[in-house]
Amino acid sequence: MSIQSLVRDLKTRNNSKIVMLVADGLGGLPVEPGGPTELEAARTPNLDALAKRGTQGSMYPIAPGITPGSGPGHLSLFGYDPVKHLIGRGALEATGVGFKLTSKDVAVRCNFCTLDAAGNIADRRAGRIPTEESAPLAVRLRQVVIPDVKIFVEPVKEHRFVVIFRGEGLGGNVADTDPQQTGVPPLDPIANDDASKRTAETAKRFIYQARKLLAAEPKANGLTMRGFSAAPSIGSYEDVYGLRAAAIAVYPMYKGLAQLVGMKVIGRPGTLEEEIDVLERAWADYDFFFVHFKYTDSRGEDGNFNAKVAMIEQFDAIVPRVMALKPTVLIVTGDHSTPARLASHSWHPVPVLLVADTCRPDGLTAFGEREAMRGGLGHIPGVYLMPLAMAHAERLAKFGA
Amino acid sequence: MSIQSLVRDLKTRNNSKIVMLVADGLGGLPVEPGGPTELEAARTPNLDALAKRGTQGSMYPIAPGITPGSGPGHLSLFGYDPVKHLIGRGALEATGVGFKLTSKDVAVRCNFCTLDAAGNIADRRAGRIPTEESAPLAVRLRQVVIPDVKIFVEPVKEHRFVVIFRGEGLGGNVADTDPQQTGVPPLDPIANDDASKRTAETAKRFIYQARKLLAAEPKANGLTMRGFSAAPSIGSYEDVYGLRAAAIAVYPMYKGLAQLVGMKVIGRPGTLEEEIDVLERAWADYDFFFVHFKYTDSRGEDGNFNAKVAMIEQFDAIVPRVMALKPTVLIVTGDHSTPARLASHSWHPVPVLLVADTCRPDGLTAFGEREAMRGGLGHIPGVYLMPLAMAHAERLAKFGA
Repeated sequence: MSIQSLVRDLKTRNNSKIVMLVADGLGGLPVEPGGPTELEAARTPNLDALAKRGTQGSMYPIAPGITPGSGPGHLSLFGYDPVKHLIGRGALEATGVGFKLTSKDVAVRCNFCTLDAAGNIADRRAGRIPTEESAPLAVRLRQVVIPDVKIFVEPVKEHRFVVIFRGEGLGGNVADTDPQQTGVPPLDPIANDDASKRTAETAKRFIYQARKLLAAEPKANGLTMRGFSAAPSIGSYEDVYGLRAAAIAVYPMYKGLAQLVGMKVIGRPGTLEEEIDVLERAWADYDFFFVHFKYTDSRGEDGNFNAKVAMIEQFDAIVPRVMALKPTVLIVTGDHSTPARLASHSWHPVPVLLVADTCRPDGLTAFGEREAMRGGLGHIPGVYLMPLAMAHAERLAKFGA
Repeated sequence: MSIQSLVRDLKTRNNSKIVMLVADGLGGLPVEPGGPTELEAARTPNLDALAKRGTQGSMYPIAPGITPGSGPGHLSLFGYDPVKHLIGRGALEATGVGFKLTSKDVAVRCNFCTLDAAGNIADRRAGRIPTEESAPLAVRLRQVVIPDVKIFVEPVKEHRFVVIFRGEGLGGNVADTDPQQTGVPPLDPIANDDASKRTAETAKRFIYQARKLLAAEPKANGLTMRGFSAAPSIGSYEDVYGLRAAAIAVYPMYKGLAQLVGMKVIGRPGTLEEEIDVLERAWADYDFFFVHFKYTDSRGEDGNFNAKVAMIEQFDAIVPRVMALKPTVLIVTGDHSTPARLASHSWHPVPVLLVADTCRPDGLTAFGEREAMRGGLGHIPGVYLMPLAMAHAERLAKFGA
């Protein structure tokens, strides 16, 4: 029996409020040996004050050594085993543009490509055509008609778009059509199991019609398909936790991930301050709030240590507004580490700070990686954060007599 | 393969002695933010001296966030996965009055209730009649006779008693007969699976005869049944660990839990000092001793911080007598936390101290929650304590070549 099944069985309801503040890619590394990480270098008086009241821990989203993508990273924070509940690439791409997948959907990542006169791939990314040119082409593909299958085509960025097939009996196990090289034609979509034969057939018909619609394009006259995936079947926050959950995010990907677990995406904030505006306005209407801050990750990905430090300080600055709402439980963490030094996601654990009146103090006085390693939560998998939040919100009954 | 199966395969025998001292509900919380917990506030010179020799850890009986009942809490300490080996309510009640369940038993929690002239429940607890009145009524129900089923009836407290049906083919999956409301008759016992049909039929006959025996009672003229449960099937300490195990406890519940795993309950102590008398006298006859101290939990449940501190000091005072016996391995911990501040069991981890000549020192000098968080055992599930005890007792062979 998984920890999530236990929590599902033990959950109770009350008027408590839980806030999960996620600074994407929060964990970092020193630039110089022995130096501070981004979080340690940042001036974070508000988080440090909370560290004195709360309990810290060192959290690994998946397992020690495993670098998470955004999908698994967030699923772990939300309390879903990210290895069991794998979100396929297509489903993640669809989710990333805010598309709400149903159980009858198969989503596919598509690339526009350039085909030569012989039908061989000349450019796998259609010269990375700008989004302004590619988006109308993706919209044009909505003209494709296949009996008994509903088709959605959503532009993504540059040469990328996503196709969703909705219908009965569509399995998600179809091989990629991108041959990963030029000078050869795209592959046919081949079903890897019987349950996916209809999907492969549907994809073949889609490609046939799409190529007619794109035939006159100078660059984007073909397409390849990758990452066929059915929507993950996953219990909602209401089912699992009995929580009315709201998600506040700027970027579509994180809104989509929250929707996958049944959170309601609220507001249309463009900045962190606006996200907190949304939080304040919706405070009475939900039990749980996921607030996502993107730019700690972005500056980490840029490899810009100082810019990431500045983003962490900006994140720290909104903490008093959150605390003024008097959440029963506040969790501050990230979905993974993104050390500027590596300019990418990494496997390093993420510091986590849990604040509640029922915290056992761990004697720490600042929020940071070195502190978190010695924190009272220990070194824990991310899937335990929601059970801990539920416990501190006194929303879990005793297990056994 | 579970850790317990590994230990079962690797166990060896020698003359070592293991003592597990359990201060029930040991873990606590500060009253004032940043203040000491009960254990930290207590003067515990003997435990602190042991902390210098031993290794501490922060132990969660079930999983982070999960508050254990006494049953799962102790099973975890004894090394049995408490989620896999769930003890049903009826079995726990029988165990709690010291009844020794066999594999042919189904135990049921029963309430005396008051029925009106129409047979509807007027009072679900028979006016909470005092134990002096209810116990003889429970004993009277031993007159019930059902062919091929042996019946045991044990008084518990006030309106509560427990019935055990012993026979072949008695499944434990029968629905409660308590309708959880007044003004309606008790429900019939209904089997939820084929294997429990005979149990439901037996229960029906028991109720029929019992009502005749109780008909003239002014308050307790009826009964309801809840928590039908078969005895859990669980390996004994001898099977799993190769240990001749003794349990020393004052309260029936803990004696019962120890009996479930095949420990021999020894002595009839009434105080902690008398428990240690029993320990001293039985020292030569067993390999493992579980010594249970109840009052740390009781004072925690009362919400009385200072009284719990006093109980911890009383617990500390017997430590020299235990150490004088020169146990190979001593484990000091609790089955869960019971912070006086919450006046209930809680999900917070429990400090654990393991003392053996083979301990790797962790540099700590006092026993307490803040120390335990930084201890050499790390943050570990309770089921690892017995494997660690076995290892330090040099009772486990190498795994693999």
